Amino acid sequence: MENVVSIILTAGASKRIKSNQSKVFHEAAEKSLIEYVYSTAKKISPKNIIFVCNKANINQITKNFTQAKTILQKKTKGTADAVLCTKNLLPKNKDVIILFGDVPLIKSGSINRLIKTHKSSNGIGCLLAFKAKNPQGYGRVEIIGNKVKKVTEEVQANKKIKQINLCNSGIMICKQDFLFSNLISINDKNIKKEKFITDIFEIAYKSKKPFLFTMCNEKELQGVNTREDLIKMDITIQNEIKKKLIQNGVTILQPETVRVSYDTKIAKDCTIEPFVVIKKGVIIKKNVTIKSHSVIESSIIGEGSIIGPSARIRPYSVIGKKVKIGNFVEIKNSKIKDSTSINHLSYIGDSTIGKNVNIGAGTITCNYDGKKKNKTIIKDNVFVGSNTSIVAPLTIGSNSTIGAGSVITKNVPSNSLAIERTEQKNIKKK
Amino acid sequence: MENVVSIILTAGASKRIKSNQSKVFHEAAEKSLIEYVYSTAKKISPKNIIFVCNKANINQITKNFTQAKTILQKKTKGTADAVLCTKNLLPKNKDVIILFGDVPLIKSGSINRLIKTHKSSNGIGCLLAFKAKNPQGYGRVEIIGNKVKKVTEEVQANKKIKQINLCNSGIMICKQDFLFSNLISINDKNIKKEKFITDIFEIAYKSKKPFLFTMCNEKELQGVNTREDLIKMDITIQNEIKKKLIQNGVTILQPETVRVSYDTKIAKDCTIEPFVVIKKGVIIKKNVTIKSHSVIESSIIGEGSIIGPSARIRPYSVIGKKVKIGNFVEIKNSKIKDSTSINHLSYIGDSTIGKNVNIGAGTITCNYDGKKKNKTIIKDNVFVGSNTSIVAPLTIGSNSTIGAGSVITKNVPSNSLAIERTEQKNIKKK
Amino acid sequence: MENVVSIILTAGASKRIKSNQSKVFHEAAEKSLIEYVYSTAKKISPKNIIFVCNKANINQITKNFTQAKTILQKKTKGTADAVLCTKNLLPKNKDVIILFGDVPLIKSGSINRLIKTHKSSNGIGCLLAFKAKNPQGYGRVEIIGNKVKKVTEEVQANKKIKQINLCNSGIMICKQDFLFSNLISINDKNIKKEKFITDIFEIAYKSKKPFLFTMCNEKELQGVNTREDLIKMDITIQNEIKKKLIQNGVTILQPETVRVSYDTKIAKDCTIEPFVVIKKGVIIKKNVTIKSHSVIESSIIGEGSIIGPSARIRPYSVIGKKVKIGNFVEIKNSKIKDSTSINHLSYIGDSTIGKNVNIGAGTITCNYDGKKKNKTIIKDNVFVGSNTSIVAPLTIGSNSTIGAGSVITKNVPSNSLAIERTEQKNIKKK
Repeated sequence: MENVVSIILTAGASKRIKSNQSKVFHEAAEKSLIEYVYSTAKKISPKNIIFVCNKANINQITKNFTQAKTILQKKTKGTADAVLCTKNLLPKNKDVIILFGDVPLIKSGSINRLIKTHKSSNGIGCLLAFKAKNPQGYGRVEIIGNKVKKVTEEVQANKKIKQINLCNSGIMICKQDFLFSNLISINDKNIKKEKFITDIFEIAYKSKKPFLFTMCNEKELQGVNTREDLIKMDITIQNEIKKKLIQNGVTILQPETVRVSYDTKIAKDCTIEPFVVIKKGVIIKKNVTIKSHSVIESSIIGEGSIIGPSARIRPYSVIGKKVKIGNFVEIKNSKIKDSTSINHLSYIGDSTIGKNVNIGAGTITCNYDGKKKNKTIIKDNVFVGSNTSIVAPLTIGSNSTIGAGSVITKNVPSNSLAIERTEQKNIKKK
Repeated sequence: MENVVSIILTAGASKRIKSNQSKVFHEAAEKSLIEYVYSTAKKISPKNIIFVCNKANINQITKNFTQAKTILQKKTKGTADAVLCTKNLLPKNKDVIILFGDVPLIKSGSINRLIKTHKSSNGIGCLLAFKAKNPQGYGRVEIIGNKVKKVTEEVQANKKIKQINLCNSGIMICKQDFLFSNLISINDKNIKKEKFITDIFEIAYKSKKPFLFTMCNEKELQGVNTREDLIKMDITIQNEIKKKLIQNGVTILQPETVRVSYDTKIAKDCTIEPFVVIKKGVIIKKNVTIKSHSVIESSIIGEGSIIGPSARIRPYSVIGKKVKIGNFVEIKNSKIKDSTSINHLSYIGDSTIGKNVNIGAGTITCNYDGKKKNKTIIKDNVFVGSNTSIVAPLTIGSNSTIGAGSVITKNVPSNSLAIERTEQKNIKKK
Repeated sequence: MENVVSIILTAGASKRIKSNQSKVFHEAAEKSLIEYVYSTAKKISPKNIIFVCNKANINQITKNFTQAKTILQKKTKGTADAVLCTKNLLPKNKDVIILFGDVPLIKSGSINRLIKTHKSSNGIGCLLAFKAKNPQGYGRVEIIGNKVKKVTEEVQANKKIKQINLCNSGIMICKQDFLFSNLISINDKNIKKEKFITDIFEIAYKSKKPFLFTMCNEKELQGVNTREDLIKMDITIQNEIKKKLIQNGVTILQPETVRVSYDTKIAKDCTIEPFVVIKKGVIIKKNVTIKSHSVIESSIIGEGSIIGPSARIRPYSVIGKKVKIGNFVEIKNSKIKDSTSINHLSYIGDSTIGKNVNIGAGTITCNYDGKKKNKTIIKDNVFVGSNTSIVAPLTIGSNSTIGAGSVITKNVPSNSLAIERTEQKNIKKK
């Protein structure tokens, strides 16, 4: 589909989100709004994506999307002006698709339908329209047959126009030459004193080259203006993911009290208990139970393992099969092999733990010396007694035992007992 | 009521639940579907319960319900065939009640009403029918007066029949002789190529021995086909329990964010904070507060105690009166007597802790030596300093004190100070 | 507004709440019902507030509201009798406002409107009325123009009266002399055998001195009779607070799974993750993230700090800027200065921790010696190794390091390494 170029508009002022951070970098289900749109644009025109930015976000966008181009719209003079800014960046002869950084749920399928309708007609352009349950606030689309006659913004609509429930998504495709030779004639003589790209439809109609339109589900066109919109979208995206997981054989108990992410993968016959938080990058294999109040991020949980309650698996951890990670246990950047148990009140960081290891309650890997993070290696079949401190870097050989309450600072050979402890004294009270 | 026999059908293929586990063993509010039905059947015919099983579940059912009989239906040839399988197991002259392993909410009261209607009429049988809000998918019941004329499955229903909203629950009582002499004549000439027991009603009507029917609330007849059904039923059952608890004087805050079980007992003037999980077998006495993020299972919490936040009480624990169990504390299989405090970051397992004991932060009972679990006994009025490891088995006598950070491996007499510690060194950095 | 006196009725029997505690002391969003009403009354007549109490609550009310007067209604003889009890406590010539201890959401603005309507008319009194969505259960208000003709209780209402949806809130203002000279004539000849103050309206109308009425939103007049009412009100109050926070630029994820309090303050660009509990007295500054399962009470969280998941900040803690408090960490009555990290499994109580300090996993301040709480002071740039016990009172000087697993019992000078540890032994197993 490389005969199109995607322009993503992100230069809006977005005051209603009430944030010092650019609106398009706010996240829903652990992914920023702009990344959703970018992922979709990548499927449409991977090598031809241009962001129109404002002063507040151009640096962050340029840094985050190195394969796309960015251009600054110096002042918020409207969408027509924003698109015009891209003029010198555009590859010749490619049709232009307009997308919005704050309309993240649009699917590539809908855009492909838009392109197809456009290409098959050999017309000037095509608009993605939708029937709104409640059209208030949206531009209304007047049509004649399959052609767009005019789009009128809510503020300028009379009673009759307001009764139309066919609405403008803003998303469109248009021949580049036509678009750019007409955008310059759009003026800002309206209440908002902005140059609206929506004026293009009447211009096209009047010059006998009307836009077509194709329909899209309203759900995909949900935009984010306020924090409330953001919070609702976060829930909407999650609900769709949870629904699919459940249909594929995952038991998510009291699903409204569970948090999942845009990319959460959970296999059949897993149980996710209430109040579990699954952040991005998580893959959970078959027959796993994640108990309440656990938090998992960017990790893999192996088949048949039981995690929690109140366990935290931090990024870059790989948990093997039939592993038990119990309450108040934190695992960070560690590999835990099959059939190992870490059941209570422990911190395992930057470690590799072998198979069939038992880590006693209150065990701490002292991985940080104030300067750098050090690695702990515990081999198969080790028994670590409770309340032990393991001062990394070190290795504990297979089949060894560590006495409870020890501070282990040196390597332990295999088949050994390591202990650091002095004599207990019982002194009669007077 | 021992003149009836209950047949529980559990041999369905149940592919829609998408599980390697038999559908009837999935749980709602911490109890399996089949156990709900079995509990109800026990009230009706405690000594005469027969499960019709499939290959996948017969072993587990036989093992779990030793007081019932089980029979294998070799192929899924329909409900008529399933009932026929029980022929050789049936006690003579007893009327037969048909129940379903995936319809767990049916109350014994409704079945008793069914039996009563049947017995008082001296008829052939009686069907439990219900008025469906949305009858789609259910078999429709045609009646004449108080008699059943015919039951037609949705797939075979014409427009007129589809308008009927009186539906077939499948649950019925029937004279054994009539049932078994007519079941054999039911054929599988239908779309699903299964022998449906529902054909019995028209057979009875045509032989001038029509079934009666009695009504039941649709709620009791909710069936479980998919994971979504299971998850909804889990919530439905919990909501009913929470409602009763609240009406009896329990404050459950933000009740949709609390988890309770089918058998949860909580006395008056308790407060259950949000995000609490109460698993099965829990009894909570008067004036207890369970703070957020706590998980309790198979334990008793004594009057006036405060648990949590983020405490976990594991099975077989008995918590006394006015006990405080604080954050990130795990109690397992232990008895904690009155007025004792375990407020922070501790693990107490396989222990008996006396009255008025103070367990310092970070205390660990080292109950597992890699082979077996050992007991810790701490007598009344003991003060255990923080970060202490108690290597079981051992006993700490009353009124004793344990120095912070000690590893205690030997018994401590009463009225003693026990300490295991070496000298602190302060070394000037260069 | 000191020409009025507020009478707050709290003497009702309140059996439906099913509690040994007086209904008005039950809390919604962490504040008792009676405190809500008292706070409002304080804005109206700060020096003239009288509670009418019953035997069960008079001591607690007298103790908690020392600036108000209390009077005992010996028997529950109705609202007219309750108001009459205050006779000897009333300052002369002040108009009387009637409020209810179980109607907590009434806003001072509505009462001021009531007063204004009353004062500007120079009439006898004024009633706060409301249009009920479902008027069932409420007294119905018959009016003529802007005057009240009669208020009829539901139980005494005929069909015609029941169709009225203008309802009696009970809240009113009245000239003192008129009120008290007529209250005595109200009898208890009704089904409930109580003297209802609502009879005053017909008395006034018949004596040609009718009450006026002014309207109020039904939401403010929600009363609490049952635990269910209490639980709903708790959610209602929270929802309003959450909505405002979100509108002001706070991201509260899955807001129904977050708990806030009546006085929660959160600045712009904070993120509150699901399953967070914010108890009373919490102030959260800009750009803070509170991660899931954290509980915060009566504390201040400084700008840019990250708390949780599963952290607990207990009362009287002050957390500086860019501080990290991680999982399974409890902070109590402590000051944590800027850029300090306490990331894992620690208990810090009664402490002052300097800037840029790193507290290792499993660190415990042993602040309690069984008799009193002792203070720990850790100065700037200290590195505390993991699993360390700090036996207070003591001070650790700036730039010092504590070896992992040490029990520190003596002060540590600045720029020192402190360690308490014996030799590790590795013993070959036989």
